[in-house]
Amino acid sequence: MKKSKKLINSSRRNFLAGSATMAGLAAVATTIPTISIVEAADAKKPDAPKSLPDFVKWKKGSTLIVHSDKGIETKRGDIGAGIVTPLRSVYIRNNLTTLTDKQIGKRSNWKISIEGVKKPTSFTLAQLQSMGQTTVATVLQCSGNGRKFFPHKPSGSKWETGAAACLIWTGVPVSTVAKACGGIVDNAKFMTGTGADLPADNKDPKANLVERSVPRDKYEDSILAWEVNGVDIPNAHGGPLRLVVPGYFGINNIKHIGKLAFTAKESEVKNMASSYRVYPVGQKGSPKFPTCWEMNVKSWITSPMKKAKSGSVVISGVAFGGTSSVSGVEVSVDGGKNWNSAKFVGPDLGKYAWRQFVYETKLKPGKYNIASKASAWSGTQPEKRMENNRGYLNNSWKDHSLDITVS
Amino acid sequence: MKKSKKLINSSRRNFLAGSATMAGLAAVATTIPTISIVEAADAKKPDAPKSLPDFVKWKKGSTLIVHSDKGIETKRGDIGAGIVTPLRSVYIRNNLTTLTDKQIGKRSNWKISIEGVKKPTSFTLAQLQSMGQTTVATVLQCSGNGRKFFPHKPSGSKWETGAAACLIWTGVPVSTVAKACGGIVDNAKFMTGTGADLPADNKDPKANLVERSVPRDKYEDSILAWEVNGVDIPNAHGGPLRLVVPGYFGINNIKHIGKLAFTAKESEVKNMASSYRVYPVGQKGSPKFPTCWEMNVKSWITSPMKKAKSGSVVISGVAFGGTSSVSGVEVSVDGGKNWNSAKFVGPDLGKYAWRQFVYETKLKPGKYNIASKASAWSGTQPEKRMENNRGYLNNSWKDHSLDITVS
Repeated sequence: MKKSKKLINSSRRNFLAGSATMAGLAAVATTIPTISIVEAADAKKPDAPKSLPDFVKWKKGSTLIVHSDKGIETKRGDIGAGIVTPLRSVYIRNNLTTLTDKQIGKRSNWKISIEGVKKPTSFTLAQLQSMGQTTVATVLQCSGNGRKFFPHKPSGSKWETGAAACLIWTGVPVSTVAKACGGIVDNAKFMTGTGADLPADNKDPKANLVERSVPRDKYEDSILAWEVNGVDIPNAHGGPLRLVVPGYFGINNIKHIGKLAFTAKESEVKNMASSYRVYPVGQKGSPKFPTCWEMNVKSWITSPMKKAKSGSVVISGVAFGGTSSVSGVEVSVDGGKNWNSAKFVGPDLGKYAWRQFVYETKLKPGKYNIASKASAWSGTQPEKRMENNRGYLNNSWKDHSLDITVS
Repeated sequence: MKKSKKLINSSRRNFLAGSATMAGLAAVATTIPTISIVEAADAKKPDAPKSLPDFVKWKKGSTLIVHSDKGIETKRGDIGAGIVTPLRSVYIRNNLTTLTDKQIGKRSNWKISIEGVKKPTSFTLAQLQSMGQTTVATVLQCSGNGRKFFPHKPSGSKWETGAAACLIWTGVPVSTVAKACGGIVDNAKFMTGTGADLPADNKDPKANLVERSVPRDKYEDSILAWEVNGVDIPNAHGGPLRLVVPGYFGINNIKHIGKLAFTAKESEVKNMASSYRVYPVGQKGSPKFPTCWEMNVKSWITSPMKKAKSGSVVISGVAFGGTSSVSGVEVSVDGGKNWNSAKFVGPDLGKYAWRQFVYETKLKPGKYNIASKASAWSGTQPEKRMENNRGYLNNSWKDHSLDITVS
């Protein structure tokens, strides 16, 4: 059976490449009962609100929902209308424990080794900073954002919309670093990033290491970032150095990165081989299923969320195309029967960022189901989610619609 | 003598309209001794570092220079490389005491009266939010930014580069509000904003009221903003409602706005009539001199500031055109003898925002004077500042150059 790793947006089943494997997956998706694969500690914890864990005490708790110490989401209405998500409200999804200042030591001395290049080299952060600098705005989104809406209750945090943020990253282009190392080796097919956050005494690195491979050519617009939203990347968000792979789901954006290698094969650690795979409900993850790479087209309304006053109503939210610019958004106030063009407002931060949309209308008192549906060159947001065991890649417009009361 | 209020960038004396008044001003600018006009309390205080005043205790003190309780600037190297300035490091320049939560009350009930329209109306913030929503990124800059470099020691905070920030504002277009009020009265020549922050028992409103008039047509891209960088506008930055006049100096962006009027005449309060006027050293401000409206083309380097290691060096900073897009930046490492094109990096947030520039070079050990020079359609940053009594509008590239040691 052919592997299908490339995620392509196309019409309704918009994240699946047209392989035999995935066609089969789609056909059986809703018929197989759930089995429980626990991906991380957060899956075992209840969803009740909790106070912020110590390592993110600096965040604004009132804007966040704490699923666990390793899963904290932004409340749907607290993402802000200003495009760039304030750090104090940005979600947390950790596989390992965030490194402490003590573990990190002097930030400028942080080291990364570059491998799979003609002259393998180790650089300090200070050295990287002397090599080049660029900035990119990206949507950072957990693969499981929208998991809450899956009826089979997948394990893992029950994210609604808040495991996503639009952030501005500054760092050195990976291409600059690769060039300084004499270029990439000829047989490389993947760019593989490895976090330095696995404790040295860990007995089973394969089970826990955060290591992810992405297609080799993705190095062309990836960066090694030390700054986010104008400040040093906080430890909780993977500082002092994080790999940013624009348009790719959060897991590929390796925190605390210690090694970047151009490799002939995909990593074989669990986080690559079986976790973050998209497969039918009830099956087990394996390399034969697509991995969570490219984000799909998506949007959601952030205001109003429950109530509005009759008369003029401003319906607003965010939309993004994944790896291509979002080209349009439609808004429905009748549960998807009729659609109206929303307008984009504010600056366009580039194809990897989200855009704000606004639809200004007049509503009489009553109950409404409001929904948004984004389009990009790759397709349009589908009505229905693609069922899959771990609840990944949900971009269903219907799931993300809101029931509001206008009075 | 003809009034000259329109500030136009043109070649070296790039903020002055070509009126007789201003030509005269330019000719005498360096020859008249300083007189002291104290514009605000901060002028009386020493420049020594101080701790943050209570109303901005939430800011990151290590990134700021406290000139006074009403004048706090961002350290030159702490602006961030990520385009949008983090709020925790954004400068403070107050004419009046920041309103407290208690004084403001429930934010959604904040009121603004719209006058000089066919149907004068008062709106609450909640009502404004139901009328429309847009977002704009602007450079917010104090007229006196760069005052430190004036040799005649003008009164007021000795700002270097840090009385400036690039911010993302969300609010309702003034044009939407004006339309809802039946349109602007026919004889209006100015849009006049008035702060609600003058205590009711103030005996001399004319002396203290923050009220500014800008040309009427500026309403077309101005907004009444309630959000900055994704959060409710902090009180210290003029929340819950602030007038944002893109491309115009900070003073025109009225904090705590309580009234917006379309008027036949300019306001006659001191902050309009004599303060914020650009006039020869030793003279007194009056309406016959240009007021601080449009920002002029400007740039400055933020890294490196003092030292660099020999070999690869990344020189970076910010540049903006004022009211038009910045079109290019050149960097010199030899005090302006030779210039090299820098590249812009990162997203373009629109013509009113600044852009980040980067010049990657190799430097041998030694001493260098590094400078940046930005261009916009309106002209190029001049070598020399335009001398003026209060130290406004300094965009001299020479003043903003840095002496660094490469070792």
